[in-house]
Amino acid sequence: MSKLPHTGTTIFSVMSALAAEHKAINLSQGFPDYDCSDELKEMVSLAMQQGHNQYAPMPGLMQLRSAIAAKIKSLYQQNINPDTDITITPGGTYAIYTAIATYIHPGDEVIIFEPAYDSYIPNVLVNGGKPVLIPLSFPEYRINWETVRSKITPRTKMIMVNTPHNPTGSILQEEDMAELEKLVAEFNILVLSDEVYEHLVFDGARHLSVLRYPAIYRNSFVTFSFGKVFHNTGWKMGYCVAPEHLMKEYRKVHQYLCFSVNTPMQYGLARFLETPAHYLELPAFYQQKRDYFLELMKDSRFTPLHSEGSYFQLMRYDRISSEGDKEFAVRLTKEFGVAAIPVSAFYQDGKDDHVVRFCFAKKETTLEQAAAKLRAI
Amino acid sequence: MSKLPHTGTTIFSVMSALAAEHKAINLSQGFPDYDCSDELKEMVSLAMQQGHNQYAPMPGLMQLRSAIAAKIKSLYQQNINPDTDITITPGGTYAIYTAIATYIHPGDEVIIFEPAYDSYIPNVLVNGGKPVLIPLSFPEYRINWETVRSKITPRTKMIMVNTPHNPTGSILQEEDMAELEKLVAEFNILVLSDEVYEHLVFDGARHLSVLRYPAIYRNSFVTFSFGKVFHNTGWKMGYCVAPEHLMKEYRKVHQYLCFSVNTPMQYGLARFLETPAHYLELPAFYQQKRDYFLELMKDSRFTPLHSEGSYFQLMRYDRISSEGDKEFAVRLTKEFGVAAIPVSAFYQDGKDDHVVRFCFAKKETTLEQAAAKLRAI
Ligand SMILES: CSCCC(=O)C(=O)O
Ligand SMILES: CSCCC(=O)C(=O)O
Repeated sequence: MSKLPHTGTTIFSVMSALAAEHKAINLSQGFPDYDCSDELKEMVSLAMQQGHNQYAPMPGLMQLRSAIAAKIKSLYQQNINPDTDITITPGGTYAIYTAIATYIHPGDEVIIFEPAYDSYIPNVLVNGGKPVLIPLSFPEYRINWETVRSKITPRTKMIMVNTPHNPTGSILQEEDMAELEKLVAEFNILVLSDEVYEHLVFDGARHLSVLRYPAIYRNSFVTFSFGKVFHNTGWKMGYCVAPEHLMKEYRKVHQYLCFSVNTPMQYGLARFLETPAHYLELPAFYQQKRDYFLELMKDSRFTPLHSEGSYFQLMRYDRISSEGDKEFAVRLTKEFGVAAIPVSAFYQDGKDDHVVRFCFAKKETTLEQAAAKLRAI
Repeated sequence: MSKLPHTGTTIFSVMSALAAEHKAINLSQGFPDYDCSDELKEMVSLAMQQGHNQYAPMPGLMQLRSAIAAKIKSLYQQNINPDTDITITPGGTYAIYTAIATYIHPGDEVIIFEPAYDSYIPNVLVNGGKPVLIPLSFPEYRINWETVRSKITPRTKMIMVNTPHNPTGSILQEEDMAELEKLVAEFNILVLSDEVYEHLVFDGARHLSVLRYPAIYRNSFVTFSFGKVFHNTGWKMGYCVAPEHLMKEYRKVHQYLCFSVNTPMQYGLARFLETPAHYLELPAFYQQKRDYFLELMKDSRFTPLHSEGSYFQLMRYDRISSEGDKEFAVRLTKEFGVAAIPVSAFYQDGKDDHVVRFCFAKKETTLEQAAAKLRAI
């Protein structure tokens, strides 16, 4: 009877609860331990005071959608129509779910790369779809497009990509975009591109948003998060961008799923987005954190994997232990006082490369304290 | 390919847009034109200032769930376990959708009474279910339980009720609850009870929440809204109450649909709920508005239908026009400057009893101005 008979509690809740229980430093669930901007909070408070507390328009406040379109224009050089192509959502996860609920019929196949953010597979299953799982290469975490082609069938409806990638930090390259473009042209499949870490790209690399590629975008849903950008994951605000013909159907589902999204928060975000510095400064801000964490971990027995983006750093622990990563992550939390996410949690079959994920979206002092504990292992 | 080929834009967006375009007084979409409490806004602002801006726990803040359980205890004399039986949602509509997405498999039948709130049928369709539509009697808008029994098949999975009822204002009676209890016992069907207008019951009537009836509740999802209660429909905050075995599956879907809900708003609502007066004063507050609107409309050519709750008043206009209600509602907006909802919009087959719905959750001056225009017809 259950649509999700094999689904337990999400690993993020499990590890955060374990961290709290054992007073461990929580580098597991992806959220910052510093606060969002006071200015932004005041903008939201002001909107409440001004009486913006009733329903927003179903697709979102026009000011906010226009501000997003301006940002897309400046970052990705595309003209997106805010009237028809952008819908504000209660978070990035919801933005993804709604695309799947709109387009996936029972029996439709959806290509998902593993390791996969843990909502993707259940989202497809709840809607009666069939996840077609393809592993990324290890340890580079790249897509093998030959394999992708070999998995396409007449039932293939959608391919999900995620760049910068959670949990691995890999990003899609020009070659990947060229392959994706070919697939869309040949098979007319839909693309769902989860780009919540769009601003978190390091070492001078460029985030290749699907929005940059009209030949891909014409078949795509591209999902974003304000929480991951402005350090307020708890506000649960995000958005979806898609061409009008796709967005029209998406909004039919959205209008009856939650109808509209928090009004005063939309006012606040619309005003905050007027200052491009608020997002332009993010790559440098996070690069510094990433570099600092790697520096602190240099003398540890963990081996960092190459990462190009996101706010996560994968680390192999094979010089420390031969345990499975779930056992290791639990022991790390309980005995060594630092919580991390076992990467096998992102594989349906539990594939275990002895890798754990650390979130470095933390204060320097937090990273220092965590690294001190990790170096002592 | 569309899951909702016959679905257009929700009537609420259509009429609110038309009202704005023609500068009509908007008594269509259900939201107040007065503001929510300053104290409540300050509680939310304080939570933001205190740094409560990261993910809330997946089922919701424990303080808020406990405050809800205390409210249920005092109003409905039931002990609900806040740990296992309550989940905070981004609004009442989402709370309903998620119950359907969790339990309705392709081909499952869901009994829905018409006129029906306009999200119910699309929610069932998106999930592959089959809406089984049963009209309420006219003009009393009561359930004929004989008819219900005649519609039950081996595929009947769920029955949706809504009390106080939108758009009609009818409320379920003791006899209805007895019948519902029998159905649950005999056929083991699920109940989805939409009770977002729980506090808006007039003339000394009692809101009979499904929560009062353990023999129904054991198979039920009961959905609520903060927006309709605290005059902040734009915050999109609500919750679902269900027994542990049902809520366990519900949370599996919820945790991958939006994961969690706005943290600072949850803090604010939790503190605000600590003062029972904030909801105990609501029936009197709305009764006064309802009575005032009826009084103002006495000399009009509209005939009010009997209503017991909700923030809507139905009116027949057959002494004014023989137009269909959609044409009439449009003309009312354009020519007479008052927007209302045509009740045929809540019937799949467009059944038209020449009735429109007015929302009286408005300031006295708004009601006076609207009534003056309506009396002039
Ligand atoms: C929705 S909780 C998970 C947050 C996150 O994106 C992650 O930790 O990967
Ligand atoms: C979600 S917009 C509709 C508001 C409402 O409940 C109504 O007007 O019936």
